[in-house]
Amino acid sequence: MNRVYNFSAGPSMLPLEVLRQAQADLLDYNGSGQSVLEMSHRSKVYEEIIYGAQQLLREVYGVPNNYKILFLQGGASTQFSAVPLNLLKNGKADYVITGQFSGKAYKEAQKYGDIRLVASSKDKTFSYIPELSREDFSSDADYVHICFNNTIFGTKFPYIPDTGDVPLVADVSSCMLSEPLDISKFGVIYGGAQKNVAPAGLTVVIVRDDLLGAAAPSCPVMLNWKEQADNDSMYNTPPCWSIYICKLVLEWIERGGGLTALGQRNRKKAALLYKFLDGSELFSNPVRPQDRSIMNVTFVTPDSETNAKFVKNADAAGFVNLKGHRSVGGMRASIYNAMPSEGIEELVRFLGEFERKQALK
Amino acid sequence: MNRVYNFSAGPSMLPLEVLRQAQADLLDYNGSGQSVLEMSHRSKVYEEIIYGAQQLLREVYGVPNNYKILFLQGGASTQFSAVPLNLLKNGKADYVITGQFSGKAYKEAQKYGDIRLVASSKDKTFSYIPELSREDFSSDADYVHICFNNTIFGTKFPYIPDTGDVPLVADVSSCMLSEPLDISKFGVIYGGAQKNVAPAGLTVVIVRDDLLGAAAPSCPVMLNWKEQADNDSMYNTPPCWSIYICKLVLEWIERGGGLTALGQRNRKKAALLYKFLDGSELFSNPVRPQDRSIMNVTFVTPDSETNAKFVKNADAAGFVNLKGHRSVGGMRASIYNAMPSEGIEELVRFLGEFERKQALK
Repeated sequence: MNRVYNFSAGPSMLPLEVLRQAQADLLDYNGSGQSVLEMSHRSKVYEEIIYGAQQLLREVYGVPNNYKILFLQGGASTQFSAVPLNLLKNGKADYVITGQFSGKAYKEAQKYGDIRLVASSKDKTFSYIPELSREDFSSDADYVHICFNNTIFGTKFPYIPDTGDVPLVADVSSCMLSEPLDISKFGVIYGGAQKNVAPAGLTVVIVRDDLLGAAAPSCPVMLNWKEQADNDSMYNTPPCWSIYICKLVLEWIERGGGLTALGQRNRKKAALLYKFLDGSELFSNPVRPQDRSIMNVTFVTPDSETNAKFVKNADAAGFVNLKGHRSVGGMRASIYNAMPSEGIEELVRFLGEFERKQALK
Repeated sequence: MNRVYNFSAGPSMLPLEVLRQAQADLLDYNGSGQSVLEMSHRSKVYEEIIYGAQQLLREVYGVPNNYKILFLQGGASTQFSAVPLNLLKNGKADYVITGQFSGKAYKEAQKYGDIRLVASSKDKTFSYIPELSREDFSSDADYVHICFNNTIFGTKFPYIPDTGDVPLVADVSSCMLSEPLDISKFGVIYGGAQKNVAPAGLTVVIVRDDLLGAAAPSCPVMLNWKEQADNDSMYNTPPCWSIYICKLVLEWIERGGGLTALGQRNRKKAALLYKFLDGSELFSNPVRPQDRSIMNVTFVTPDSETNAKFVKNADAAGFVNLKGHRSVGGMRASIYNAMPSEGIEELVRFLGEFERKQALK
């Protein structure tokens, strides 16, 4: 077996320990005589998994007691509809666009209400995060929506916007559980789990209790957070296997010292790569330094031919999925929780070698 | 390892060969250096899996070329909303209630239009399927909705209703791929895959081309079949792992001689169990014989105490999840594709022994 370094933006690497555990459990989980893939979600053995995952997520992420944790299906894109359908009481919301997914969320919300664009960083190809203060938001909005980390453009909010009494809603798909987060500053955070937390198919929604119960009458029952909360995320069959892997990942985070230690490791990993890029003559990162993501690191060479050559060579050398998003080109290294430090060290070495060879030509 | 016979209504047993393959592939799929759990859904290696599964499903299930196959998330319950949101052009639809899930579908659809209840078998505790002919349906309905196999009550439509020009929509969650089906008689069939086809998290929707494109403006983008069809079920990240297991299950069905052979095996398995129940003094099945499901076999003893004792003893003997749905009590053996004949033979033996011991008391 020859495992590659997988820099995919998602789905993405899982900790090897987690994969080995999943492999060992595959035919017979914990002496139950069944695979987790086959278990009734109403069985005791599975209830221990889902409630265990929920409790562990609460502990590891520091989710306050007045927030519900929901394990849903459908990805962040489903929540782009669910957010307005659950929260629009007065029909008004404020959106900030800092990349493609926040743009999609904005577009989707327009189906359901009077949606105001507060700020956008499109003017500089989404290479920065706008500075926003309380005065920028409408005080009569039902919520303010942001995307906290922008997977495609490699930016992250370096601060939590102050929205006053208006609930702040954040798509945290690509930075969930990557470092400590003060969840009490948000009304809702949500994200697809397939980047940092679990395999594709699980969407985590963390919602403050007082925001439940205002869903539009036309809200599909499965998108209704209150229904899901009242049914412990089991209104119907949940994505059982992804929740099980989520639990294994949370146990792995806990064994590694929790989110504080993990956040430090992640910052160190990112710093190593940014340091190389900032010192390189060939490669560069286009993001304003204070707004750089520690999960998604974008970079380019001066021409698309060299970009393509780099991606091809890297792939052959076992550094896969370094191609940037199809909408922007260039390169991107997504370095989520499970990417080991050695992966970054070896990538930096490979980048350096490529640069030296190019210079000799 | 001591595997049990798992009679769960879903999630449920998977073929042992499939589990072994998944276990072998877990850390490194096909020399890719990655687990399927970690793969970018935009990578070539994953595209082979999803398109392969789609093509195989088309072949194995005989899906006509003018139907799209969608691999979605959210379960049949999400489709209870998606069906009216995609199909209500004139705002009218006809529903038949033959159990709990068709009742839920009916209730959900009322959010979106003028929904008519055509027939219900509630008068006899859903123990039969009503006879329906073309005259029973409204000719101006946008569609007719039925649940083809009723998981909780153990019934199945013994015929495909003739709805004339009105598209017939069927929830086939608990009978999908259990035997040959003339899909051309339906406008749409859909189902959660966690019973017969794959682990939880995958919902298969098979929809006739001419029914795409009529979604309501308020339809959440992820529930919009046309959007999903236009994006090859990858508008966002699909439930990658469940689709991979679905492909392995389809390969297993193909190796076993396809749906005709599988349908024969399933009928034989069910017949063995029904034969025992019909001859028993203690146990009985409440369903009208011609409407019996070959996937979900319900049975009772005359009193709830004996039912509970049976379930407990069976569980201890390695026949698990035989308890009936919490809403109806009694017992239920869900005997999907992956339940081997020996599982039924041993269950019948165990039922017989239990009956003899009870008679001696």
